[in-house]
Amino acid sequence: MPLDIDRFLHDLDTLREIGRSNGTGVHRPTFSPQDMESRHWLVREMREVGLDASIDGIGNVFGRHKGTGPHVLSGSHLETQNHGGWLDGVLGVVSALALARAGLPVDVCAYCDEEGHWGDFLGSRSLIGELTDAEIDRAKNRHDGSPLRDALKKVGLDGKPRIQLEDGRYKGAFELHIEQGTQLENAGLRIGVITGIVGIRQWRIIVEGQQDHTGGTTMAERKDAGLTAVRILAAIDTEFPRVVGPRSVWTTGRIVLTPNSPQIIPGRAEISFSFRDLSPEIMAAMEACMHAVVHESNRRDRCQARLEVIGHAAPSPCDPDMQSALKDAAEALCPGGWQSMPSGAIHDSQVLSRKLPAAMLFVPSIRGISHHWDEDTKREDLALGLEVLAEGVRRFLAR
Amino acid sequence: MPLDIDRFLHDLDTLREIGRSNGTGVHRPTFSPQDMESRHWLVREMREVGLDASIDGIGNVFGRHKGTGPHVLSGSHLETQNHGGWLDGVLGVVSALALARAGLPVDVCAYCDEEGHWGDFLGSRSLIGELTDAEIDRAKNRHDGSPLRDALKKVGLDGKPRIQLEDGRYKGAFELHIEQGTQLENAGLRIGVITGIVGIRQWRIIVEGQQDHTGGTTMAERKDAGLTAVRILAAIDTEFPRVVGPRSVWTTGRIVLTPNSPQIIPGRAEISFSFRDLSPEIMAAMEACMHAVVHESNRRDRCQARLEVIGHAAPSPCDPDMQSALKDAAEALCPGGWQSMPSGAIHDSQVLSRKLPAAMLFVPSIRGISHHWDEDTKREDLALGLEVLAEGVRRFLAR
Repeated sequence: MPLDIDRFLHDLDTLREIGRSNGTGVHRPTFSPQDMESRHWLVREMREVGLDASIDGIGNVFGRHKGTGPHVLSGSHLETQNHGGWLDGVLGVVSALALARAGLPVDVCAYCDEEGHWGDFLGSRSLIGELTDAEIDRAKNRHDGSPLRDALKKVGLDGKPRIQLEDGRYKGAFELHIEQGTQLENAGLRIGVITGIVGIRQWRIIVEGQQDHTGGTTMAERKDAGLTAVRILAAIDTEFPRVVGPRSVWTTGRIVLTPNSPQIIPGRAEISFSFRDLSPEIMAAMEACMHAVVHESNRRDRCQARLEVIGHAAPSPCDPDMQSALKDAAEALCPGGWQSMPSGAIHDSQVLSRKLPAAMLFVPSIRGISHHWDEDTKREDLALGLEVLAEGVRRFLAR
Repeated sequence: MPLDIDRFLHDLDTLREIGRSNGTGVHRPTFSPQDMESRHWLVREMREVGLDASIDGIGNVFGRHKGTGPHVLSGSHLETQNHGGWLDGVLGVVSALALARAGLPVDVCAYCDEEGHWGDFLGSRSLIGELTDAEIDRAKNRHDGSPLRDALKKVGLDGKPRIQLEDGRYKGAFELHIEQGTQLENAGLRIGVITGIVGIRQWRIIVEGQQDHTGGTTMAERKDAGLTAVRILAAIDTEFPRVVGPRSVWTTGRIVLTPNSPQIIPGRAEISFSFRDLSPEIMAAMEACMHAVVHESNRRDRCQARLEVIGHAAPSPCDPDMQSALKDAAEALCPGGWQSMPSGAIHDSQVLSRKLPAAMLFVPSIRGISHHWDEDTKREDLALGLEVLAEGVRRFLAR
């Protein structure tokens, strides 16, 4: 059967209406009524294309191919960021559905809660057997603190079995995603074949000082935690370029001073800092640099700083055979219009790659905008993405 | 009549019970029920010591001496910071009441809202004729945004006349206050005679960048407003010591990144920065340095920064004759146990000094703690402060 591009685009448009927000965006947080509506929609669509479909005990929507293998797994996520865009995740789910509709031996999965409303990659980690019931018991909504168990009960999923990856069933797992950056657009390219998903190390830098009145406390007497934090961040800004690689990124996304009041000397500062790279060696060098900066600050400054690990994820190289099949497909369908590139963002494929060969394909994001209702991709690029994915899967299965 | 030290300490203890909070502190925001209770208490006490007392249309509690002059004005404020201490402001009011009780020709005033729950020095600015009805119409509560007019109506003050300073009535205005710093304590001294109240210039530094995904955006593509903010603050940290004076202070009390999320590049940064000094020349040099830092940042960095003035207050030297009287009194009552010093914090006396000769006296704060429920001063230091104030007023009136 040929790919049904029109139906694929229609499905994307249909999901855009479920939780439409801010005109062009979508607000569909995990387990919201809109999110559950989208999951039930997907079950119906999966059944219509002949898959054996259900929603499992963590919210994964799984559609199992009924024919013989070898099989591939394909999918992404359905929920969105709060007031986010219409393509992030959804594109990977709807394209996998289109592969199944075209008769390819594909199991389709919408991995639940990739966007982290309740936890870290709950759906894909559940699928590969890494999520414990105890973690589900502890998990709370990141916005309002309500327990995940209550939400699962409310949507009728609590107590349902959680689907586990079937050993030996898959040759690999594919995911089509929007770039969420501007590299393809700036290079005038339409397809990115992902070489790997960067690793990420996330830290909290906590500086303890002494809260005081700005007027009554001389410079000599102060223990200004905010000032020490600024000095540490300025040192990172100076030192990091000496150790990083060409594709490394490092970011201070969050600074919280206490009490954060114009006329009070900050008694505490908390910084959320992270860095990403594909190379474990470069990541190790960045981490060593960071420890050196904090150590030197503690040697010189009056306020002591400490590092707390929030989370580390190792870089995940994509499977070379799968990459090769995708490259061949891209060159066949879009000669000279694609490139190999790393993924700077983390995706479910990074979790899956712990158990399966995994690969990803990117299409351009207009102006790189994502996690925002302005997120968009040209319809011809969406279509091309699906075509390259399908051709890549065919070539990979034929090897 | 002699000073009634016991009654003075008893009055402080009484006010501590009105809005007692967190064990040792007081929560008495302006126009709260507790605040109004303290104002009515003061009216009764003023009448008992023979003053002509009332609460005016902005909440000032004014007690007018009925006898002949020459007169002095003395007072401070009754409201506290949220969950603040028991002495900040209250000491100046209760000590002024004690002067009147001892028969000194003193008008006592509790200037309303020095702590700025609704505006900037509303009470003292109203008294000297600087507060317009239009400003009262516009003023809103800084915590909940409710209109000042509604609050004035609720407490029965709206529409009442506002008392104005009577021309020619006063030789000067005195204010006894806690230090809110550790200079007296560290020097082992019990009294500070204030040479002047520092000027303060307050700014907002706003940096505009581009909010982006940390994973998908290369370092070359980023416009990280938070990083530019850090570089500006680091430059101020480096450059300011070249231009400041020995008693200058400069502070970043508040940093707000937008959206302040660990994995999003900040699209906007807002910094609240201020500096203080007694010398207009040094303040001008600091301001020039700040402009140069921002100018240089805009020349080099991708994110543009701009300066917005929040508020400027000129330094206010204290009256030399009043200082001299207070120094003589301090030396007589506490030989070798006092010093001259500037006030780093702003007080109602700075407002009054625009119309009257003004002077201030400090007693030590234990460990410098203020604007906190742990705020405290030894009872013998409170008593000595009152004695030096009374003796200084007597000597000044006799000149």
